[in-house]
Amino acid sequence: MALLFSSKNDDPERWRDVLAQELPDLDFRIWTPGGENIGDPADIEFALVWGPKKGALKAFPNLKAILSLGAGVDHLDGKDLPEGIPVARLVDPGLTRGMREYVIYWTIHYHRRFGEYAAATAAKTWQQLPQADTCNRRVGIMGLGMLGADAAMHLTALQFDVAGWSRSPKTIPGVTCYNGDDGLADFLGHTEILVCLLPLTPETTGIINTKTLAQLPEGAAIINAARGPHVVDDDLIQALDSGHIQGATLDVFHIEPLPSDHAFWDHPKINLTPHAASITTPETAVLPVAQNIRRVLAGQTPEPLVDMDAGY
Amino acid sequence: MALLFSSKNDDPERWRDVLAQELPDLDFRIWTPGGENIGDPADIEFALVWGPKKGALKAFPNLKAILSLGAGVDHLDGKDLPEGIPVARLVDPGLTRGMREYVIYWTIHYHRRFGEYAAATAAKTWQQLPQADTCNRRVGIMGLGMLGADAAMHLTALQFDVAGWSRSPKTIPGVTCYNGDDGLADFLGHTEILVCLLPLTPETTGIINTKTLAQLPEGAAIINAARGPHVVDDDLIQALDSGHIQGATLDVFHIEPLPSDHAFWDHPKINLTPHAASITTPETAVLPVAQNIRRVLAGQTPEPLVDMDAGY
Repeated sequence: MALLFSSKNDDPERWRDVLAQELPDLDFRIWTPGGENIGDPADIEFALVWGPKKGALKAFPNLKAILSLGAGVDHLDGKDLPEGIPVARLVDPGLTRGMREYVIYWTIHYHRRFGEYAAATAAKTWQQLPQADTCNRRVGIMGLGMLGADAAMHLTALQFDVAGWSRSPKTIPGVTCYNGDDGLADFLGHTEILVCLLPLTPETTGIINTKTLAQLPEGAAIINAARGPHVVDDDLIQALDSGHIQGATLDVFHIEPLPSDHAFWDHPKINLTPHAASITTPETAVLPVAQNIRRVLAGQTPEPLVDMDAGY
Repeated sequence: MALLFSSKNDDPERWRDVLAQELPDLDFRIWTPGGENIGDPADIEFALVWGPKKGALKAFPNLKAILSLGAGVDHLDGKDLPEGIPVARLVDPGLTRGMREYVIYWTIHYHRRFGEYAAATAAKTWQQLPQADTCNRRVGIMGLGMLGADAAMHLTALQFDVAGWSRSPKTIPGVTCYNGDDGLADFLGHTEILVCLLPLTPETTGIINTKTLAQLPEGAAIINAARGPHVVDDDLIQALDSGHIQGATLDVFHIEPLPSDHAFWDHPKINLTPHAASITTPETAVLPVAQNIRRVLAGQTPEPLVDMDAGY
């Protein structure tokens, strides 16, 4: 039994070590362009991948499952994958915790005006600012998958007034849920701090644009921890410069690393992080990966299963 | 039935309005040095105060209870208060929420290295930093009163490894509790992010000093949201400059507003806020205050009752 590992972002040695502890019989093979380490392609039953080479996974006749190294699967193109092989997203408890922290931190940042306090400190100004009560602070989460629902629940536990928006209807205790094209304007109109945790699909590409930004109330803030192409960069800069949007925190970009001449680097109303909102760590992610391998070996499907047509 | 209001920090008009809604029969009188608005001192049954003038409360023969406008009572000196009159601290749900947010924000700030990311962004550097797992991040809360226990429980819910230290033994689910002089070194030795929420008493004054800072592990961070005199300023600066302590977030100071020539303003390893970690808001604080007035009128003691000898 062999697993093919292929990723430019993840450390193969760490994955080899943690998988060996969970599944000592698993043969760990690292993809290379020339195929030197792969051995007999017929041995490969599992592929653990981030952004594999186009069509590369079609070379393995006994492949049983494709396991994503990330929560999103926009690094996979359905047309390049072998037909009929299940694809599972990664649900890493460490990744979920990391995203939760990122969303809570930046939500509190805008809620409690810590950016303004930092600027006041730099100017040696001592001034308490008026403070809205948490219960009246409206936070809106776009995307209510595993990460979005988790963030929504934790913000609700902190007593924020939380709403969510997703393509299909969802129910989360304590969270006002909107859905579909019809619900988007209402959702945005009620959102002071907008958090984007959507999957990247043709429908969600460019969803943060001049029209939707204008639907947010004056002074709203944006947190994008999903994918760069959710945002139309020029539209966001225009909304920040006009003052309609007070600030944006961006972890993801159209091109990564963010090119050094991009306007985001210097913009006074933008906080940015280098795609670090949450990082897959082999030590916590190995458990659900090993669990999925065991499930497939037992004749079950891996979880959570991706609908490659929907894109998530 | 009359209440005397005396505070330099709190807005009497807002308090008059919110109290009138809860207790329409309560006569609201604002203290002035000349006593112009107080009327007959014998009318005053309640005092709602922050830092009243020395001895001023002894002038009211029918005073039934002293209600603090803050969670701490270091603004009151037992020697200046009329004997035998119960003193209650303020437990404002809005104040508790505010402190919880402050502690969570700055804990995540150090845990997730957001200060380092901000510096990298300013230098246009794109670099993901190694990240410790939340479950292994040791946060220590000094002071396990209402605010400390609340912060400890919420950090535990976020899956931090939380310890607490208090004068007397305490039990909080999921939190490793240390106590007394004997427990302090052990507590500090296990703490990477130290949060001070202690009451200010003779025993806790100067508790963050060269000796205790040295007991923290290399690279620890400090968050002080209690009172300025908990910290020996020069000792903290020395520990920051030596690199033993990576950073400090300070909301409170020996003298407030912080004098413009104080070294804290410019220190690159210090984040400061102007005693804004949490602010009493009349709209949320009025309920426990009104509740205490009703308790006293019904012959009960107000809550939580302060032991003025202990100082909290």
